[in-house]
Amino acid sequence: MLKLKKLKNFYHVWSIMSKLPDITKKFPDWYQEVIYEAELAEQAPVRGCVVIRPYGNAIWEEIKAVLDKKIKDTGHENAIFPLLIPLSFLEKEAEHVAGFAPELAIVTHAGGKKLEEPLVVRPTSETMIHAMFAKWIKSYRDLPLKINQWANVMRWEKRPRAFLRTSEFFWQEGHTAHETHEEALQETLLMLSEYVDLAQNYLAIPVIQGRKSPSEQFPGAEATYTFEGFMIDGKALQMGTSHLLSQNFAKSFDMKFQNKEGQIAYPYLTSWGATTRLVGAIIASHGDQKGLIIPPRIAPIQLVIIPIYRSDEEKLHVLAAAHEMTNILKKAGIRVKCDDNDNMKPGAKFFKWELRGIPFRLEIGPRDLAAGTAMIASRLSGEKQSIAMNDLITLLPGMLDQFHHELFATAQARYEKMWHKIEKIENFGKQLEEQAGIYQTGWCRDAACEQLLKPFTGSIRCLLSDRQEMKECFGCNKPSVVDVIAGKSY
Amino acid sequence: MLKLKKLKNFYHVWSIMSKLPDITKKFPDWYQEVIYEAELAEQAPVRGCVVIRPYGNAIWEEIKAVLDKKIKDTGHENAIFPLLIPLSFLEKEAEHVAGFAPELAIVTHAGGKKLEEPLVVRPTSETMIHAMFAKWIKSYRDLPLKINQWANVMRWEKRPRAFLRTSEFFWQEGHTAHETHEEALQETLLMLSEYVDLAQNYLAIPVIQGRKSPSEQFPGAEATYTFEGFMIDGKALQMGTSHLLSQNFAKSFDMKFQNKEGQIAYPYLTSWGATTRLVGAIIASHGDQKGLIIPPRIAPIQLVIIPIYRSDEEKLHVLAAAHEMTNILKKAGIRVKCDDNDNMKPGAKFFKWELRGIPFRLEIGPRDLAAGTAMIASRLSGEKQSIAMNDLITLLPGMLDQFHHELFATAQARYEKMWHKIEKIENFGKQLEEQAGIYQTGWCRDAACEQLLKPFTGSIRCLLSDRQEMKECFGCNKPSVVDVIAGKSY
Repeated sequence: MLKLKKLKNFYHVWSIMSKLPDITKKFPDWYQEVIYEAELAEQAPVRGCVVIRPYGNAIWEEIKAVLDKKIKDTGHENAIFPLLIPLSFLEKEAEHVAGFAPELAIVTHAGGKKLEEPLVVRPTSETMIHAMFAKWIKSYRDLPLKINQWANVMRWEKRPRAFLRTSEFFWQEGHTAHETHEEALQETLLMLSEYVDLAQNYLAIPVIQGRKSPSEQFPGAEATYTFEGFMIDGKALQMGTSHLLSQNFAKSFDMKFQNKEGQIAYPYLTSWGATTRLVGAIIASHGDQKGLIIPPRIAPIQLVIIPIYRSDEEKLHVLAAAHEMTNILKKAGIRVKCDDNDNMKPGAKFFKWELRGIPFRLEIGPRDLAAGTAMIASRLSGEKQSIAMNDLITLLPGMLDQFHHELFATAQARYEKMWHKIEKIENFGKQLEEQAGIYQTGWCRDAACEQLLKPFTGSIRCLLSDRQEMKECFGCNKPSVVDVIAGKSY
Repeated sequence: MLKLKKLKNFYHVWSIMSKLPDITKKFPDWYQEVIYEAELAEQAPVRGCVVIRPYGNAIWEEIKAVLDKKIKDTGHENAIFPLLIPLSFLEKEAEHVAGFAPELAIVTHAGGKKLEEPLVVRPTSETMIHAMFAKWIKSYRDLPLKINQWANVMRWEKRPRAFLRTSEFFWQEGHTAHETHEEALQETLLMLSEYVDLAQNYLAIPVIQGRKSPSEQFPGAEATYTFEGFMIDGKALQMGTSHLLSQNFAKSFDMKFQNKEGQIAYPYLTSWGATTRLVGAIIASHGDQKGLIIPPRIAPIQLVIIPIYRSDEEKLHVLAAAHEMTNILKKAGIRVKCDDNDNMKPGAKFFKWELRGIPFRLEIGPRDLAAGTAMIASRLSGEKQSIAMNDLITLLPGMLDQFHHELFATAQARYEKMWHKIEKIENFGKQLEEQAGIYQTGWCRDAACEQLLKPFTGSIRCLLSDRQEMKECFGCNKPSVVDVIAGKSY
């Protein structure tokens, strides 16, 4: 009994003695360290690139599955386009090439020879896909054309951070063509709303959505819409974007169709993308001093079972019960793992799975077993309670839902604390610089005023379409035309 | 009545007037044309690359789903490694770099600067993954390490053919490390058997499996195992390979671990891969003059429903029934599409979906509807029969299974016809050159004898471990050590 108590104390001490850097004071260090310790990713021996390890990839696979279903359910089809794009394709859209040129990786030699024309490792695929669209779209009957691609892309990165900003990253890029401007705008906003649903109802991250200011638009687009999450450190993370490209690219690629009236017209295009950055958003939005907290709806492991025993006989019974429960829950569609590794003590396992952010831990020991119960611990509240083994299968889905809502509410509460409404830059610029957060203010839409945020390392994250609370522009004396969120970005 | 008969006749004539080149006499043209017409893939504006269109990609996604489950069920985890590999990594394994050098695409510039060291677009990832394995493997407790990656790879190709041979292609590459040679060999053979199961029991392609001769091994491997399919034109297609790398790469990458006895040892490695070539194998193994025939277990559409009507009132009833049946079958897990496109006549739809190889077509018309029946047509036999709508859901799974077995048997029958057992090269060399097929013969294992096949554009496809029927080597007077399959390859 004394021995068990000692063990408990030891574990208690150990768990609060997390090796992770202080999440409040040293957030960037915490972020980097938790990724390494939880084996999500690791520095690769290529500049700016990471290796995404199995656990990090498993989270990405869950996100992909949800997003892929959304993309298909809204009538898009997946296709695959080439990795390499002739440099001349990018040059067809002047703004586009200017925007991406500094970040390009370029293939100059292949098959033992110097290439006649250099090929670019795609930084995004508009130009390649539009070249194909120009072949496929002849008549209004070919519209709308709604294509998506899951792919790797490359934008050379000088200051990489795992998941948030790496030279190579992984994403889906949707590309669509429509008969009318109205229909293309609807598509742009529909996919934005699907992304927001993914962020809030799966990743448990509240987001602020809206249009980007012209200076932050996608190179060549008419309008870019964004959804921004605010991380634990108060910084804004652009989690994905949806672009109304309108007719710019169609004209550059001579993409024409015969409309219902028999006239030749240019289609209206959109593109939209979300990346492995979403894994970074989960880490930076939900972690705590013990490590990650993975939202249950995309957690590769929703419940980990830890068998606890001291004798061989206890082991026999406890393992049998743990494996049986694992099978029952798996059949019920719960993503469960039984950690029956004999080389680790239960305390070390608790630590390991807390670090990895598994929503629930089920401890099955001999005494519980005799009573037909087990102890279940929540990664979010840290609370432990006894649960009847027979009830687990019926209760768990509700508990996972509850966990999701509490996780979302926790983030929401953080947003409310860091949300400041301040009219003039002289009253919030210095504060924004020193303490990142959500700064709602008014804007006259003049780019010169937008520039005033730069010295404070701030920027307009998005325009709010649903709020108009501010009277004057933050930068000048003109009236505010639109409320905006200013913040510091990743 | 007369009108309907006319339409039927017209369709009949039309369907046998397929625009595809003669599959028997002009197989390469048929192959290229069916891919374009069925919208599987299209030439991309980058040398040797294709765009995989939605239908082609949907087939690949089905194959991926089956193979990914097999890989996970056998205890492997997916991870992601960088696209670009420093050239020096490839140079660490002398045979390896010699094997791949002529096919490499090389990035020399990135981020606006010339790189200090050129980066190779991965032709395969052994070197990158082994560099990481060397960091992760310290003790026998870290073994076995079983990793898989789904990725794009690049091998510069001078004579591309969609799906069979393109500069960029898509695959999974498994990489594992083990304590003993025995365990690594078991892994190599296990994954070979999983591939064979995929080929035979999902793609309905009979395969011949065995070891490659040393001259055809993976550069740097101790042994390569292959599974080969023989296509309609009698040519052999290497559908995938599993390599016992043994300790070569481990030594090159200084990958060491402490074994159970406390000694430092090199692990034994394996790698194994299958690619988008499997889509090519389906096309070239199962097609006929009307187009593709897609094996039902990986068909993105297993059944297409064609509603048939002549009046608006008929349309109302027929479409309602067609949509209801679509929903019922979807819920039962059948992959079904209702082609309710108003711009196409039924005959044109029959043609379209036959070309695309959908296993079953269900025609729902007003008269059938009144009788509670529909006509179901098999893409393989071409036979049409009446089926009670209420029976469809119970009968269809069995019909799909039956279709699979018949498709496999059809291919198997082709193999038997083209399987020749001939002792000496002077008796089969010329024949092999003029008529591709499966040539079983005996071999003394001497590379000089293997070379004798070259003038006849033949090669040893694999060594047969389960047959030893030949007495003498095909090339010399020595006794045969092993039976081999000689053939012409893609």
